[in-house]
Formats: sequence, structure tokens, C-alpha cells
Amino acid sequence: MPDNLKDAYRLLSNTLASRGLNVDRMKQRMKAVEIETPSWGYSDSGTRFGVFRQPGAASTIEEKLADAGQVQRFTGVAPLIALHVLWDLDVQAREHDCVLELAKQHGVRIGAMNPNVFQDQEYALGSITNHCSSVRKRAIRHMIDSVEIGKALHSDVLSLWFADGTNYPGEADFRERKHWAQESLVEVYRSMPPNMRMLIEYKPFEPGFYHTDIADWGMAFTFAQGCGDRAHVLVDLGHHLHGANIEHIVAFLIDEERLGGFHFNNRKYADDDLTVATVNPLELFLIYNELVKAEDHPNGNPPIAYMVDQSHNTKLKIPAMIQTINQIQIAHAKALSIDRAALARAQRANDLVGAETVIQEAFNTDVQPLIRVVREEMGLDPDPLRAYNESGYQEKITAERGMRRGSGGLGQS
Amino acid sequence: MPDNLKDAYRLLSNTLASRGLNVDRMKQRMKAVEIETPSWGYSDSGTRFGVFRQPGAASTIEEKLADAGQVQRFTGVAPLIALHVLWDLDVQAREHDCVLELAKQHGVRIGAMNPNVFQDQEYALGSITNHCSSVRKRAIRHMIDSVEIGKALHSDVLSLWFADGTNYPGEADFRERKHWAQESLVEVYRSMPPNMRMLIEYKPFEPGFYHTDIADWGMAFTFAQGCGDRAHVLVDLGHHLHGANIEHIVAFLIDEERLGGFHFNNRKYADDDLTVATVNPLELFLIYNELVKAEDHPNGNPPIAYMVDQSHNTKLKIPAMIQTINQIQIAHAKALSIDRAALARAQRANDLVGAETVIQEAFNTDVQPLIRVVREEMGLDPDPLRAYNESGYQEKITAERGMRRGSGGLGQS
Amino acid sequence: MPDNLKDAYRLLSNTLASRGLNVDRMKQRMKAVEIETPSWGYSDSGTRFGVFRQPGAASTIEEKLADAGQVQRFTGVAPLIALHVLWDLDVQAREHDCVLELAKQHGVRIGAMNPNVFQDQEYALGSITNHCSSVRKRAIRHMIDSVEIGKALHSDVLSLWFADGTNYPGEADFRERKHWAQESLVEVYRSMPPNMRMLIEYKPFEPGFYHTDIADWGMAFTFAQGCGDRAHVLVDLGHHLHGANIEHIVAFLIDEERLGGFHFNNRKYADDDLTVATVNPLELFLIYNELVKAEDHPNGNPPIAYMVDQSHNTKLKIPAMIQTINQIQIAHAKALSIDRAALARAQRANDLVGAETVIQEAFNTDVQPLIRVVREEMGLDPDPLRAYNESGYQEKITAERGMRRGSGGLGQS
Amino acid sequence: MPDNLKDAYRLLSNTLASRGLNVDRMKQRMKAVEIETPSWGYSDSGTRFGVFRQPGAASTIEEKLADAGQVQRFTGVAPLIALHVLWDLDVQAREHDCVLELAKQHGVRIGAMNPNVFQDQEYALGSITNHCSSVRKRAIRHMIDSVEIGKALHSDVLSLWFADGTNYPGEADFRERKHWAQESLVEVYRSMPPNMRMLIEYKPFEPGFYHTDIADWGMAFTFAQGCGDRAHVLVDLGHHLHGANIEHIVAFLIDEERLGGFHFNNRKYADDDLTVATVNPLELFLIYNELVKAEDHPNGNPPIAYMVDQSHNTKLKIPAMIQTINQIQIAHAKALSIDRAALARAQRANDLVGAETVIQEAFNTDVQPLIRVVREEMGLDPDPLRAYNESGYQEKITAERGMRRGSGGLGQS
Repeated sequence: MPDNLKDAYRLLSNTLASRGLNVDRMKQRMKAVEIETPSWGYSDSGTRFGVFRQPGAASTIEEKLADAGQVQRFTGVAPLIALHVLWDLDVQAREHDCVLELAKQHGVRIGAMNPNVFQDQEYALGSITNHCSSVRKRAIRHMIDSVEIGKALHSDVLSLWFADGTNYPGEADFRERKHWAQESLVEVYRSMPPNMRMLIEYKPFEPGFYHTDIADWGMAFTFAQGCGDRAHVLVDLGHHLHGANIEHIVAFLIDEERLGGFHFNNRKYADDDLTVATVNPLELFLIYNELVKAEDHPNGNPPIAYMVDQSHNTKLKIPAMIQTINQIQIAHAKALSIDRAALARAQRANDLVGAETVIQEAFNTDVQPLIRVVREEMGLDPDPLRAYNESGYQEKITAERGMRRGSGGLGQS
Repeated sequence: MPDNLKDAYRLLSNTLASRGLNVDRMKQRMKAVEIETPSWGYSDSGTRFGVFRQPGAASTIEEKLADAGQVQRFTGVAPLIALHVLWDLDVQAREHDCVLELAKQHGVRIGAMNPNVFQDQEYALGSITNHCSSVRKRAIRHMIDSVEIGKALHSDVLSLWFADGTNYPGEADFRERKHWAQESLVEVYRSMPPNMRMLIEYKPFEPGFYHTDIADWGMAFTFAQGCGDRAHVLVDLGHHLHGANIEHIVAFLIDEERLGGFHFNNRKYADDDLTVATVNPLELFLIYNELVKAEDHPNGNPPIAYMVDQSHNTKLKIPAMIQTINQIQIAHAKALSIDRAALARAQRANDLVGAETVIQEAFNTDVQPLIRVVREEMGLDPDPLRAYNESGYQEKITAERGMRRGSGGLGQS
Repeated sequence: MPDNLKDAYRLLSNTLASRGLNVDRMKQRMKAVEIETPSWGYSDSGTRFGVFRQPGAASTIEEKLADAGQVQRFTGVAPLIALHVLWDLDVQAREHDCVLELAKQHGVRIGAMNPNVFQDQEYALGSITNHCSSVRKRAIRHMIDSVEIGKALHSDVLSLWFADGTNYPGEADFRERKHWAQESLVEVYRSMPPNMRMLIEYKPFEPGFYHTDIADWGMAFTFAQGCGDRAHVLVDLGHHLHGANIEHIVAFLIDEERLGGFHFNNRKYADDDLTVATVNPLELFLIYNELVKAEDHPNGNPPIAYMVDQSHNTKLKIPAMIQTINQIQIAHAKALSIDRAALARAQRANDLVGAETVIQEAFNTDVQPLIRVVREEMGLDPDPLRAYNESGYQEKITAERGMRRGSGGLGQS
Repeated sequence: MPDNLKDAYRLLSNTLASRGLNVDRMKQRMKAVEIETPSWGYSDSGTRFGVFRQPGAASTIEEKLADAGQVQRFTGVAPLIALHVLWDLDVQAREHDCVLELAKQHGVRIGAMNPNVFQDQEYALGSITNHCSSVRKRAIRHMIDSVEIGKALHSDVLSLWFADGTNYPGEADFRERKHWAQESLVEVYRSMPPNMRMLIEYKPFEPGFYHTDIADWGMAFTFAQGCGDRAHVLVDLGHHLHGANIEHIVAFLIDEERLGGFHFNNRKYADDDLTVATVNPLELFLIYNELVKAEDHPNGNPPIAYMVDQSHNTKLKIPAMIQTINQIQIAHAKALSIDRAALARAQRANDLVGAETVIQEAFNTDVQPLIRVVREEMGLDPDPLRAYNESGYQEKITAERGMRRGSGGLGQS
């Protein structure tokens, strides 16, 4: 450990200890983190105005597993990769052992299974809410197939996002579609093995611009209640209307024992899918504050899947993902740094400035010495971005893969 | 009936008949409407920058009942008046018989009881979510008192809005407050007689600017579920974040049998409390489309309270309320004018332009001849605004009451 | 003219006359309208999640001109078609006489020229604001080429939209980019012939999600001022943040003599590119109110280009465009129907309810009989959508063109 | 200096030096800051639902000057106080020498003069945009009086905010009102002495809920251009629609040499007037990044007035203001900490992750040791909030002033 890191860590430890915190316990919690990165985060992506092509972007499952392996290699807390059925896996081919083997080689495990019921033209007017029953059946079939693939790949999370919605008043009946959605979800739910959980994602708009069938957490929550105890709500940080207090929603869902997971990213305008905590880092910190509290005082909430879902159109994929993991670690470490006793005292005294100051002191703490020491103790380079940049991997994939018409993601059209 | 109205009505009837609609049935439904106006809509109101004082604005319960009586007299479909405990009623005084008698004299009935647990300084940091149990108890006590007053005034609706929320991170714990809110609501719920319903209103912000304890329909819905079958959600049209599809929420709540009522108004920016349908009349029409469909195919949803909650700072109070009733009647009549068979045909054929055209043709129909004939058949002047303006009432109250420091509303400070 | 239309028209004429309006003058103004439809509105479009492919969608310039010709044939007020350089025209090929000839055959004229400086990967980090001067030069070169093509095609409008912006803080320097944008625009401006006008479009976000270099009307206005008198602002109705009062911006720009044109569409959430007036028809009417007033009392504002820019992913292209023209005509006719004398009287008397009632009476007027009569007098079918649907054209292109991988639009990837 | 501060400062100095920064120059810049606090920030405030009364809140000009003096005493960088004519000063009384003397006693100087043309009922439908010329004249008169008072109080900034706007379509004509606004501003502008500047504030809504006459920076900018070189734009951080990139607007205005000043605060929903940087501290830091760059490379932009405008309803006034000053100092110090050479290198290399990392490293730097040392060198306590809390002043004013019906602010009704 270099001297200046040693000094900085010692100073930080003193500060944290003065807040009554157990630094060893903090480090344990930080080492236990498992973040899931998405396979599609390693391939080309874009906006409706076009795909941004990058030399070296992944286009096969092998490449995606390899790239995810790099992120895990340099960060140590991203051992899981989410897969997208259709983009990554051939439903028929049964190449599952091969995928498991490849994952193992690259040091990662398979995380959530993401069925795809939005890509085919048939789903243009809806999948599980399509008024045509054969389309709904096809969507259900695909999701049940995905459950089977998940079983084969040792995944215990089925993560569901639907592009279902309408563009214009009169296009369809909200309630009819609600019934179809619930029926379909129940059918898929019943196909899951007992160790599998279903995550239901909500989103207010896009690609539907008049309504989305699962528009907010309340709707996802109601559908989850209608399925059973292993159906939970997935909170994508970018899927809210302007002003929504996400940390409040997170706390509410935990209290109702239905918070199943996150899609981490950040947004300034719509569902921008920017790197997490790059628009408002305080927000991520306040979300982690709720998560830390829930960990401190557990209730019956299920395990939470910490997943990344971003669209790095202009940033290089792997460096951006390493940056992402770092941003999450910072928010987590800051949330662990709150002086909870001082906070409680200020709250009891109705001292609003004092209570907020406790929160702000934690947020303003430079926790990087702690994170760096954690990495050293995990046998990692304390600066993963620099280490990756110096590893030569980016130059290698740029040279080997070149600029291609990517498959396996939004960029594939 | 003047000739031009006769002609216009005949033409409109033909149009409606050509859509397969039963005009007599439409008229019956329009006559059966009962809208509730708020007592505080007749007294001075304002913004945080100051109260706008109007000559003739009501400041006593007698004046408010009299003014509501004028709206009912000229529109015929506004027979109910919501009362605000503290602004209108002395909890101790037991003047209830007098209020009932006055209401009767002015041709109105008492609608929802609105407790006030936000005005006193004691509630600055919350009422039912205050960390101080004595404050919570006081709030519960006031609501139970309001139930008692409601019983005495033959009101069967307890309408609850809470200003509870926080301004800054760290000020309080979301989940702790959630528990207190649920416990308090259950206690009040249990005090209600079997014929009374509880409406729980949600609001995303203001007066709290960091979080509101009942921030959206999902939270109100969860609290209602936690109380019992007679707890329902109140939808205030201005209490949504930008972009929220309110008609979708309305349909969802009806389907869950928890839509208890509305606060009608309109907004362009925040909770502007403007006259309903003056910012986006299509939205109100689409909400009424859901209500008409629900009436056509009833499920177990409770009766819906159609209440107005607006803040006419610069418009004269009574004319603005008559305009409001007219706006609601237009939306209702247009929603009744939809050619449902043609709509279903277009939907089945995936003809989006065709389906929306059916909706738009109804929206673009000039339904005023129908509304005017309905009024004539109810023994009213077909143009209530003009009739009121010519009645001399406004001049009378202006002269008699003058410009005062109003009590009984937001204007009282 | 069928009897019921005759009756309805007579009744409407009486109503309009009673408002002091000259119906013949109204009809003249409605007949003089020239709306411009976009070539890319006839080809496949989509969202970032995929392109929606439609059988019969246009993919060549010939097909686009033919389809635009259909819209003009049935509506009579859409004689112009906007072209997109790169999607429609080969910069080198000099096939301009051919395009002019084809347009003539299909009864349309060439409207605005839209250069494309966003499609190539080279522009991923900006075109006229790219820190690399060779990229900026290339973009300027393309725009000057477009000016030349415009001259050859008798177009007098150069319509500029830039995808330029950034995704993350630190990516670039706002002010440096501002200087580059201004310099580039001036260079293009100077290349225009004296009869050509430059329209500068603003947009708050997408595809850049941190900042857009021309983010709002104030920036477009400043850049236009920096170019000269023939540089004006283009208002795309979907390019505003939530709550923006667009009619106010329109009035302000007219007053500053810088309103150059519109991109008509509507939005509920982001830049949804929905059919105009399908989310909030009152808003379009209020915008037309400003346009009608400006026409009544002209100042030095330039001629206004009325252009459509929508993305009909799920609606059939040509029916949706005919619906669009109808929506615009309705807004225009309603704005012409305002009783301006009564409005002025109410305003002078501070009678807010009265003034708004005048506005609402015009908005609630069913102006379709007037529009239908205008069409009949122009030799058109009064119901253009039905007439088109019965013409067999849609079946013909569906059969002939089939479902293809479209070129020439957002759908081309 | 305590040892742990010495250690922390040494470590931080090393870090900053490794970024090529001159720590002494940074400290000089931080010491030279002059922030202006508002007199109304020391008295009671509230929302439209009621005023929150605090024991000890100021209600006289003497008390406000005393309280502002406390903030200056403990922070050393808040030597100015903005005054509100009507709330603070009697236009007729000519007690200016007394005010100057009191200010001097309390160690503060008079900052901006804020006329009040919104409080009187006469302005309900507008002040400088009122259709009644006598109302406009009265408003102009009051502003010219305020210029005179400003001269007497040695203020060189006239800060103008107008509540002018409308609530409903039809209420008034935008362009007519625009002309009246411009004429009025010019008349006031001409009354200013050569050393005085006019700041024009914009706001999208509230108290007008349909339109505001000066709705955005583009309108304020246009009005300023119409007045002359000493008319500039005032940016209130809470006066933007959701998503607006404020740092971009700031940079644009600086580049146009029209950025005159700020009203610092923060918002999550509407114009919430929360403590600055408590909703999104990254945003304030990015704004300061533009200010620091402008200071590094000055153009012809005028001096910038750094003013606070917040509404601490539930926080104690003086502690909240000290917290505010601290928040501003943190943003400033972090912006000064950016490694500009590294940033430029990454930008030139199109290394987006690298460039943003430079920004984030500055933001994540704990600059408090630097700020504390600056305070020590200024002869202040390094922790001003604790020092104030221990000073006994709050207890003293609570006891002496008690809870009163405040005058001199929004709380006065």
C-alpha cells in the first residue's frame, strides 16, 4: 500500500470511528457485494436516430462473457452477468453447458434471464396485452422457455420487462389489457421452479407514448401480488416521471416485502440510460441509505438483485462499466458512513439542519481510501480503471474484433 | 326552446342516433349526475405570495351554503357541498342541526367531511406521521371527531388529505412514518359507521418538498388495503407528476375496486388548482370515457364521489364554479357520445387511425345542444352562466359582504 | 352536398355570423393553407428498441413523392414535401430535374431541404460543435451542398436540426462549442441565395442526454440573430420541457420577427412525435390563435413554414398523414371562429370567466361542416380519410411494395 | 489548528498539487467571495397552506440586519444583505442613514434592492403588464423610488422579479403585455444612475399558472437587450422546467455577457426554495465549474451577484443560512479542484470516461479541510454551524423575540 493511501486510510478510519462505525464490518459488507452487469451492455447501442458503432464492441455471447469477465477481474464485485434470450441464447440450440463452461472460464456466473417479447413485429401492438390471444400465447411460451433456459443455466431470477403499451387514445382498453397481463404473468409464474423469483419491471413510457401497461411501481406491485410471494418489483432508476422520490418508493417496497431488484442507471430527461450517479449522485446515495438500513434491520423482503442497465452509446463499454461499479461502491460506502446515532439524536430533537448535516457529512466523505483498501485486501488493483486501461485488453479487442454490425442488443436492428 | 336550439338539437340527435346511441338514455344519465362543490371554493384563496381578496367572497358557513345553493340553482347537478372541519364547523359547538337546516334552505346537502390536520403549527413536521405520538393522537382525535360530525350531518364520506411529508433528506425515516400512517388510518377507519367510506388522497409534493408520505396512487391504494373494504383512493387531477396518464390510473383503480372519488381541477405545472378541463379538455374526456365504460359494465367498485377542488384566485368564485360544472358536463356528454360499436370494430381490425377517429369524433362533437335541452327538461335556464350573471346575486353579495379578510379557507392565514 | 351537411353548415354559419365573423373570408383563409409533409413520414420508423416495419411503406424518393401526392390529392392543402438529404437525394448524382418532374407528376412541390449531419459515425460527438475542425468542415460542406440542391429544386427553405450535444459532464466545453456552432451557421448562411431562409431548430435533449447545443428557443434565437435577417427559429411542438407554454413562445418569436416555421406533432412524455393534437388539442388551437392574430395584424415576421414532423410507428403512414392535416384544419378553423370583439370586451372588463368562455366556445364549436364545405368547394371529397381508404391505394402499395427493409428514414439503420 | 485537521489539510494539499493546482491561489479566491443573503430569509415564511411561525424569527429591519450579521460573523463570506422594499423599507420615511448605520454595526453592507410590485391587490392581474396603464405607472413609480432608495443605501443592483402572468387562456394578449413590459423596464432602466445594474429574473410559473410574462432566460435576455448594457439576467436555480440544464444556460449567458447574478436555492419539484445543493449537489458544482472557467478566462460579462433566495419553512433560519454558505463554499472549492490539464487531455483524446472521471474526482474530493483552513486564516471558527449553535444567539432571540406574527416577508400576509 503506498504511503499516501495508508495516510488517507488512517485518517478516514479515524473519522469513521468517531462516528461510532466499525470499519472492519464496513469492509466485510463491501466485499460481499455482487453486482450483475448486462450482456447487452458490452455490445453496440444507440438511439432511434441510429446505432453508435464502436470498434471492439462485443457481438457474440463468448465476447460478452469475456468482457464481463474483465469487469469482474478488475472490480471483484461484479461476478454476475444478465443474459437476454434471443440476443444471447438460441432457444432451441441447447448450448447451455457451453455457456456455463464459458462463463466459468471468464470468472462469472449467469444472473437474471431476460426474455425478449418486444423485438418481433408481431409484438408491435403488445405481447401479453395483445388483443390477439395467439400473440399472447406466443409471448407466454417464450417466457416459459426462458424459465427452462434459466434452470439449465442455474439462474434463479426471471426478469421481465414489457414494451407493451399504446400510442393513442382509443387504440385499446386499459382494463382488458390489465386482465390479459395478469393472466399471462400468473401462467409464467406457475412455470417457475421453487427457487426462482420473478421480477416485474415498470416504466412510464417508451416505446408506448400514450400508456404503458405496467406504468409505475403501484401497477408492478399489484401484478406481483396477483402472482404470488416470489413475484417482486424491479426498480429501474430511469423509469420514473420527473420529480419522483425513488428512495421513498424503494423504502415503501421494502416495507411491503416486494423489492426484488434494481436496474441501475441515471437520467436527466427521459429513460436516458446514462452511467449511474452521473446526473445526481446524491440520489443513489439516498437509495443506498435505505438499502443499508434494511440490511441493518431485516424484514421479510426478498434478496435484492443489483443489476446494471445502461446504454453507453459514446463511452467505451468496458471502461464505462468499471466506472459504473466504482460509482455504486462509492454510494454504498458513503451510505455505510452515516453516523446513525447522531442522526437519530438530531431527528428526535427536531433539528432539521443537524439531521441533514449528518447525511451531508457522510455524502461529502471521500470514501475512496476505504474502497481502495478493500480492493487491495481482495487482491485487486486499487484503481481498476487505470489497471484496465493499462492491461492492453481494449487494444486487443479493438484490433481483433474491429468495427462490426453488432448483434445481440439494441444495436442489432 | 328557441328555434336554433331546436334545430341544433335535432341535428345532434341524428348524429348520435347514427352512432347507435340512445339519446333518451344519455339524457337520463346526465340528469342523474351529482357533483360536489367545496365550501372553500367560495371563499378567498391565494398563493404563497399572498391571498387574492374578492369583494363578495364568502367567509361564513351560511354564506358558503348560500353560494353553493346558487350553483345548484343554476346547474341542477351540484346538490352537494363538501365541508372543511375547522374552516366551516366548530368541533365543540354542535351547531349541526342549524347547518342541516341552512343547507336545506339553500337546496344543497352535505357531502364529504374534510378534517384539517395541517393548519396548526403543531403539525409542521407531520400529523399522522409525526414522530411525536401525542401529535399523532391529536390528529386521530380530530379525524374521529370529524366522523362524529359527519354522522350528525348525514355525510357518508370522510375525505382525508394529509400535508405530511418532509423537506430534506435525513429529516425522518420513511418506513417509520409509513407504519404510523397506517396505524392512524386504521384507528380512524374503525371509528366510522358502516355506511361511511374513507377516501385517501395522494399528492406527490407540496407542502413537503422532499417527500410526501402518501405520494402516489400506489401508496394510497396500499394504505386503503391496510384499512378495509370501505377505504378507497381519491384522485385529485392535479396531484400527479408530469406525464402521468391519469385515465390509466383511473381504469386501474376501478378494476381493483378502489376508486372512491375525484377532486376535479386542472394543472399545467404543479398543483395549480385551475378550473377543470381548461388546460387539457381531452384528458378529462378520456377520464370520463373510463367512467362511462365502468358504468356500462359495473364491477364491485364503490360509488364514486365527484368533487371539485379548485382555487379560483382571480376568477369570480360563483361564475367559475358554474363554468366548472359546465366543463364537467361537456366531458361527460362527449364520453357518452362515443360510437362504441365502431370503436370495437376498429380495435379488432388493428385500425389505429380508425379507432382514434371514433374517439376524436366524439370529442369534436358539439354537445352543448344536448346539455341545453337537458337543462330545459330539468326546468333550468339552458345557459346557466348568463342566467347567473343576470340574476343580480353577484352584485348583491358584492354590496352586502364587501371585501373582507376572509375566514374559512386558505385565505384565512 | 348532402342535406345533413347543408343543415349543419347553415347552423354553423349562423353561429359564426352571430360572432361577427365573415364566413367567406374564413373559407378563403382555409383554402390558402399550404402544409408541408415530410418525405420520411412515408417510410418505416421506430424507437431505439427497433424499427416498426409496415407493408407498403415507402423506401424510394419516387414512392415518397407518390405518397405525399395522395395526401395532397385528398386534402388539397398539403402541396409541399420536405426532403431529407442523404435519405432522399444523392448529393453527387444531380438527379434534380428528375425529382422536380416526379414531384410535378404527383402534384406536389419541394419544400424545405433538410441536411443530414447526424447519421455518420463521424458525428457521434458532434457535427458543427465537434472539437475536430475537419468534422465541422465536413458538416458545413454538406449543408452548403444542400443549399445547392435546394436551389436546383426551387426550395427556399434550409431547415437545420442538429443532433449535437453531450452525454456527460466534462465531455466538452459549452462555450467553445457555442462559438463553433455560430461560426458554422454563419458560413452556411452566407452560402444561401437571397431568396432562401434558414430555419434553426431547437431541442432540449435526445440524442444527447446531458446537454444539447441548441437546447431552447432562446439559443436558436441567439444563433439566428448572429447570422442575419433570413435566419429564423423553427418550433417543433415536441421539443420542449414539460409545462412549457408553447403558444407564449410562438407569440414572443412572432413579436421579435423570428418565427420561421413549425414541426407539427404532439407529445405526452418526451419527443414522442405523435400525431398533432392527439395529446392536447387545446394547445394546438391556442397556438393557432396566435397565428391567426398575427395574420390579422401583420408585423415584420417572415412567412411561416407549416411542416409536419411525426413518427407513425404503428399507424399506417398515409391515413395518419391525412388525419394530421384534418387535425390542423380543425385547430385553424376553431381559431378563426373566436369572437374577437366579445373577447376584447371581456378582457377590458377583467371578466376572466367571460374571456375564457369566448375561447372555449370557439374551441367547442364543431367546425367540421365548415371544413367539409371548404373541401367541396375545392373539388374534394368532404371526408378525405374515408375517400382515401376507399381509393384502393393502400391495398395497391401493400401488394406492390410489400414489407421491406426501408431506406430513407430513421427506419433504415 | 488541531492535528487531524493539519493532517487532512496536508493530504489534501498534496492531492491538489498533484493536479497542478496552486493551493494558495485557491484560498485567495475562496476568501474573496461575497455572498448576499436576503432579509426575508430571516423572517417567517410558508406555503399557500399556511405560514410556519418560528420563535425568534426576525420581523423588523433591525432584527434582519442583526441576523445577517450573525451569518457574516461566523462565515466571513456573506457581507451583503438584499433588501425588499415594502417589507423592509418605508418608501417615504427616509430612514436610510439609520439603515446604513445599523448595517455597519452588524458588519454587513446593503446588497440588491428588490422592489415589490406583487403584493397589493391592484397587481392581481399584473403590474408592468397590466392592461390598465395607471397600474403600470404605479409599478414603474415604485421601481424608480426603489432606485432612489438604492442610491441612498449605496446599492448598485436593482433586482427585479415580477409575479406578472395569467391563469387562463383568453385572459390577455401575450404580445400586448410584452410591449408593456419592455416599455416599463426601459423607463426604470433610464432612471438608474450609471453605477447601477438592473437584474431581470425569469420564472416559468407561479403565481401565474397559465403563463408568466418573463418565463425563461430567453425572454429575460431579450428584455435586457431591449434596455441596454447594464441590464442583465438573474438566474434563480429553482426557476426552470424539469430537466433544464442550468449550467448550460449559465455558460450561454456568460458568453453573451448578460449573466448578472444568481438566486441560489434548490428544488425537486416546482419552485421549492430549498437549501442550495440539498437536492442535487452535483448540479451546483457544475454551475460553479462554469463560473470558475469564466473567472479564469474573463470576457465582457458583468460582475455576478451571488445571492441566496430560499424559504426555510421548517429549518431554523440562521443555522440554515450558515449551512447554505457552507454548501456554496463546498461547490466552489470542488470546482476549483478540477485538474484542468487532465480534463483537456481527455477531451482532446475523445476519452469520455476519462474526462468525466476528472470531473468526478474533483466532486468526490473532500474539500472541507481546505475550507476549514481558509476560515482559520480568516480568523473564524472552522465549523461555523457548531460555533453559532454554541454562541447562545439562537436562545437569546428565541427568548427575546418569541413567536410573533411576522412582518416583512411572505409570512406577513
